[in-house]
Amino acid sequence: MMHQKIEDYDFPKDLKKMNRAELELLSYQIRDFLLEKVSVTGGHLASNLGVVELTIALHRVFNSPKDRIIWDVGHQAYVHKILTGRASGFDHLRQTGGMSGFPKASESEHDAFDTGHSSTSISAAAGYAAARDIDCGTEEVVAVIGDGALTGGMVYEAMNNVGASGSHVIIVLNDNGMSISKNIGGVSKHLNKLRTSSRYRSLKKNTKKVISGIPVVGKNLSHTISDTKEWMKYALISGGIMFEELGFTYLGPVDGNDIGEDIQILRQAASVPGPVLVHVVTKKGKGYRNAEQNPDKFHGIGPFDIDTGRPLSAGGTGWSGVFGKTVLSLAERDSGICAITAAMGSATGFGEFSRRFPKRFFDVGIAEAHAVTFSAGLAKAGKKPFAAIYSTFLQRAYDQILEDVCLQDLPVVFGIDRAGIVGADGETHHGVFDLAYLLPMPNMRIFAPADGNDLEAMVEAAASCSHPTAIRYPRGNCRIDPEEHRVYSGGNVRIRSGKDGDLWAVGAMLDTGREVCRILEEQGISLGLVSVKSVKPLDLSLLPRNTKRIYTLEDGVLTGGYGQYMKAHTPAFWQVTGFGWPDRFIEQGAPADLYQKYGLDAAGVAERIREDNRKED
Amino acid sequence: MMHQKIEDYDFPKDLKKMNRAELELLSYQIRDFLLEKVSVTGGHLASNLGVVELTIALHRVFNSPKDRIIWDVGHQAYVHKILTGRASGFDHLRQTGGMSGFPKASESEHDAFDTGHSSTSISAAAGYAAARDIDCGTEEVVAVIGDGALTGGMVYEAMNNVGASGSHVIIVLNDNGMSISKNIGGVSKHLNKLRTSSRYRSLKKNTKKVISGIPVVGKNLSHTISDTKEWMKYALISGGIMFEELGFTYLGPVDGNDIGEDIQILRQAASVPGPVLVHVVTKKGKGYRNAEQNPDKFHGIGPFDIDTGRPLSAGGTGWSGVFGKTVLSLAERDSGICAITAAMGSATGFGEFSRRFPKRFFDVGIAEAHAVTFSAGLAKAGKKPFAAIYSTFLQRAYDQILEDVCLQDLPVVFGIDRAGIVGADGETHHGVFDLAYLLPMPNMRIFAPADGNDLEAMVEAAASCSHPTAIRYPRGNCRIDPEEHRVYSGGNVRIRSGKDGDLWAVGAMLDTGREVCRILEEQGISLGLVSVKSVKPLDLSLLPRNTKRIYTLEDGVLTGGYGQYMKAHTPAFWQVTGFGWPDRFIEQGAPADLYQKYGLDAAGVAERIREDNRKED
Repeated sequence: MMHQKIEDYDFPKDLKKMNRAELELLSYQIRDFLLEKVSVTGGHLASNLGVVELTIALHRVFNSPKDRIIWDVGHQAYVHKILTGRASGFDHLRQTGGMSGFPKASESEHDAFDTGHSSTSISAAAGYAAARDIDCGTEEVVAVIGDGALTGGMVYEAMNNVGASGSHVIIVLNDNGMSISKNIGGVSKHLNKLRTSSRYRSLKKNTKKVISGIPVVGKNLSHTISDTKEWMKYALISGGIMFEELGFTYLGPVDGNDIGEDIQILRQAASVPGPVLVHVVTKKGKGYRNAEQNPDKFHGIGPFDIDTGRPLSAGGTGWSGVFGKTVLSLAERDSGICAITAAMGSATGFGEFSRRFPKRFFDVGIAEAHAVTFSAGLAKAGKKPFAAIYSTFLQRAYDQILEDVCLQDLPVVFGIDRAGIVGADGETHHGVFDLAYLLPMPNMRIFAPADGNDLEAMVEAAASCSHPTAIRYPRGNCRIDPEEHRVYSGGNVRIRSGKDGDLWAVGAMLDTGREVCRILEEQGISLGLVSVKSVKPLDLSLLPRNTKRIYTLEDGVLTGGYGQYMKAHTPAFWQVTGFGWPDRFIEQGAPADLYQKYGLDAAGVAERIREDNRKED
Repeated sequence: MMHQKIEDYDFPKDLKKMNRAELELLSYQIRDFLLEKVSVTGGHLASNLGVVELTIALHRVFNSPKDRIIWDVGHQAYVHKILTGRASGFDHLRQTGGMSGFPKASESEHDAFDTGHSSTSISAAAGYAAARDIDCGTEEVVAVIGDGALTGGMVYEAMNNVGASGSHVIIVLNDNGMSISKNIGGVSKHLNKLRTSSRYRSLKKNTKKVISGIPVVGKNLSHTISDTKEWMKYALISGGIMFEELGFTYLGPVDGNDIGEDIQILRQAASVPGPVLVHVVTKKGKGYRNAEQNPDKFHGIGPFDIDTGRPLSAGGTGWSGVFGKTVLSLAERDSGICAITAAMGSATGFGEFSRRFPKRFFDVGIAEAHAVTFSAGLAKAGKKPFAAIYSTFLQRAYDQILEDVCLQDLPVVFGIDRAGIVGADGETHHGVFDLAYLLPMPNMRIFAPADGNDLEAMVEAAASCSHPTAIRYPRGNCRIDPEEHRVYSGGNVRIRSGKDGDLWAVGAMLDTGREVCRILEEQGISLGLVSVKSVKPLDLSLLPRNTKRIYTLEDGVLTGGYGQYMKAHTPAFWQVTGFGWPDRFIEQGAPADLYQKYGLDAAGVAERIREDNRKED
C-alpha cells in the first residue's frame, strides 16, 4: 500500500485502504514532503505540520467532495491538498502560475470554499448545511478552524446562528494555542483551561451528554459525580459549557496529533445530531524542532535551510519596521501614544513597542472591527492611537473606520501595511482596494510614502494631526537614508518636468516612475514626474503648464482609486489617464511578474505613454 | 423637588436630590413626556419606554460626563437626553435642524460616543477604559447594550479583549428579549434561560462570587448548595457562566424596570474590580399598552394617535414591499430561492416570505458579516440567496461581499434597502456610500430601479444571473403600475433627447430628472434625460451625439460614485459633471430639505445646469 513518493499515491482513494500503521507511516512521509518542498518555495509551514494527523483523519472519516470540508483562513490546507491529489503542485507552491497556498475551488472540487481571511468558515458551513437541510441531504459539512480565528467576531455570529438552527454542522476546533502571534483574549484563557482539564475528560464523556439530554455515552449521573466540589471544578473548568450554551454539543479535547483519537472523535461527531464542536489539541510545527520552538517564525516563511532553520535570503529594512520604530520613538516623548494591532504585533513592526510600553500596546487578536472602534474610544479619551493593520484585513473594519472614526473626526492613525500587490499570498491578500474604500470617507486623510524617509516623516506629522489619518505602504523592504531626517507638511513633490506629459506616481510607485522617465528619455520623450504623497486631500498645485497629458500610476485598483479621484477634480484642460490594477481579482505571483503582466512595470507604463504620445502626434 | 414640567428640571443635578418616591414619580412623568412628544414627531418609542428606570438609575449612580455612559446603537438614549438637559429638544426630535435621535457629542458632553450602528459600545468603552488605566484614572466606563446587539460579532471581539485585559468596564445588558424583530440565536436562548432562572438568583448572589474568587456577598459555599442536583441546575441554567468564561463577573438578572434594583446592582457593579456584566431585564414599550403589545411596530414609528396607537399618515406601496413580494413570487416557482435578513425581516419586505417558506427564510440576527458569508455558502451549494440589508448596515459586510461573494463570483443577490438619504435617522443611517464601495469590486453587478416596476423586473432578472448582483433602492414608497409587467435585460433607457445637455439620473433620481427637464424647458433649455438602471456594467451606448455636456445625478456620495465612474470611462469629447452628495457627513432632516440644501432637488440641479449653459454661451 505504501509508496516511496507522495506523488505516487492515488489520494484520497488510497487513504481508505490503509491500516492504522500505514496511516502513521504516511504522516511521517507527509511531514518530510512538506519540509522538503516548503523549505524551497517558502510558505505556511508550522500550521500545516500541526494538522497532518487531523487532515488524514478528516479524509479517512469523511468523503470529500460529497462531504464538505471548509478550511478557515486556509493556510493550513497543504496536507489537504496533498491528500486530494495535488502533491505535484508543491514544486510551484505560491509561485507565479503555480498552486495556491490557500483553498481554491478552481484547483480542485475538494476545496469547498475559497478562504484567505479569518473566521469565515462556520458561516460558509452554515450556508452549506442550510442548503442540505432544505434538500434533506445527508452529506456532512465540516469547518476546520484554529483557536486564533475564534477571536474574530464572525465566528460568534455564525455559532449563534447555527446553534439556534440546530443544523448538523461539525466544527473542528484546531487548538494549538497560537494564532499567528501568541493567542490573546478571554476565549484563549478559556481554551487553555479546557486543554489542561484532560483529567476531567472521562468524567465529561460520562456525564455531559446526559445533562444536555443527548444520549451519547453515559447513563447515570449520580454515579460519576461524587460531590459538589467535583461539580464545581467541572462546571468552571469545562469551557465546553460556553459552546454548549451556544447550542453545540462539545466533544473533546483530544490529542489532535494522534490519528486514532482524531478518527474516533470525528466518527463520534458525525453520529451526534445537531451542531457539534470537536476540540482537538495540536502542536504547531509538530515534528520539526525549529518550527516547534519558533512556531511564530515558521508560520509564514520564505525559503530556508532545513537543518538550521535559517532563512536563505538576507533581511533588510522593512516598511513595517520603519513604521513601528517611528511610532516607538514618538512614544518615548509623548505618553499619549498607543499602538494597536490585530494579532500582527511583530509583523507590523510593533515588537519593540510592545516590550518597551506594554501598557500602551494593545493586541486585540484577529478582530479588526473591534481594533478600530477600540482605537476610536482611546482617541475620544484623549490618547493618540496608531493602529497598524494590513490593507486587506482592514477591509474587515470598513464600517468602523467610517462610522466610529471618521464620523466623529477622531485622530486615529492607521498604518496600512502590505498595501498594493503582496505576491505569493495572492487574491485574498493583495492590498489593492484601500484607496478606493478610504477616499469616499469624509474627514479621512490619506498619505503614501515614496520611501522610508517619507514614511518616518508622515508618521511624525500624523502624531500632531487632529483628524483620521491613513498612511499606506507596501510589503517588503524600503529605501531609507539613515542620515536624512525629513519633515512632511502635506502635499506632493515635483521630481522633474517634461513637455510630453506628466507622470503622477503614488507613494512607492515613484521608483517605477523614475525608471519610466529614464526609458522614455532614451526614446526622446520628455516626461515630467510628480511624487504623489498626499492622496487625500488632493494636491493639484503641481499641475503642469507645459503639457496637458497627465498619467497617474498607483498600486491599487483603478476603479475608485487615486487616478479617478484626480481626474474627477482636474480641470478639463488636462487629460488624465490612469494606470493601476484592472477590474478583476489579481492572482498570486512574484510582484515583478504581476506588474509586468498587467503593464504596470516601468517598461509597460513607458510603452503605453509612448503610444499615447504617438497617437496624438 | 418635583416640577410639573420635565423641561423645568435642572438635570442631571436635580436627580441627585430626589428620594426614592420622587424617582418613581419621575419615571411616570418621563413616560408621559415621551409619549406626548414622540407621538407628534415620530421616533424610537418602545425601547425608550423600556429603559426609563434604568436610565434614571444610571444617572443617579454615576456622574456623567466624568463617568462615561456609552449607548449601543443609541436609539434608546431619549431618557438619557432628558436627564442631561435636553428635554426641550424633543419638540424637534429627528427633524431638520432639530435634536438627533441618537447620541451626539456635538449636542452634549454627556454623549460619550456617537453611535447608530449596532454592537460597538463595548469596543468604545474598552478604549475609554484603557485610556483611563494608562492614566490611573478613577472614572467609570459603562456600556449599555441591548440583547439584540449581542448577535453582532464585534461584541465578542470586545468582550474577549476586555475579559482578558481585566480592565474595569461595566457592561449593562439591557435584556428585553427583542432586538428590532424577535431576537434570534443561541445567545438569545441562553438569555432566556437566565431570565427564567430568577429563583436561582439568591443562590447565585451567595455562591457565584465565592467560586470566581471575588468576595462580594456570600461567604460559605457549602451552606447554600445543598446537593449536586442543585448545582447542575445552576451550572446549566445560569448562562452567566458564558460571560464569566469570557472573563466577566456576571451580576443579575434583576428587574430593570425597578429603580431600586437598578440602583443597587449598578452600585454593586461599580464596586467589583475588573470587567463586570450587569444583566437587567426590561420590558420594551413598558407603560404604554399599545407598545407593550406591539414592541416591533413601536420600535421606530412615525407620528401616531396615542389612544389607538394608529399611525397618523396613510401607508402606500414601499420599495421593500415590492422587493419582498417579487422574491416571494419567484420562490413559489423556484425551490432554490432563499431569503436572508439580518434582524430586519419585515422591514425589508420578507414578512410574508418568512411565513410561506420558513425553511428557506433565514434571520441571522444583527450579523451582516455572517449573513453575507452564509449566503455565499448557500450559493456554493447551489441555492439562490436573496439577502436584503440596509445600505448603511451592509457596510459591516464589506470584506465578506468582496472576499467571499465576489472573489468566488457567486450568484448572491443583494437587496440594498434604504439606499440614499433616509431622513430622520441622520448621519449614521443615510445609505450614500454603497455605490462607492461596491463599484470597485470585481464581478459585481449593480442595478438601480427608477420605479417599482423596474425593481420587480430587476429582481426577476437577478434570479437567473450567475454573478453577484446588487439592486439598490431608497427608503419609502415607490411608484408602481400594477397592470404593467416589465422585463429587464440590462442597460439604461433614454427618456428624452435635448441639444443643451444630457442628464443621466441614477435609479429613483429619475423623478427629479424629469422635473429638471420640465423646469429648464420653460427657460428655453433643452435637456436630454437618460434613466441609468445599470450602474455596473457601465452602459455608455446612449451617449448623445447632439451635445457634449453630460450631467450625472445620483443619491450617493460623489467620490467614487457613479458620476466619477462614468467620467473615468467616457471619451474626452464629452464633459461629465456629477451631482451627488459632497465629501462630508450629511445631517438628519426631511429628505426634501436635504436635497434642497445640497442643491440636489430639481430646482437646484436645474439652476446649476442653467449656469453651466450660460457660462459656455
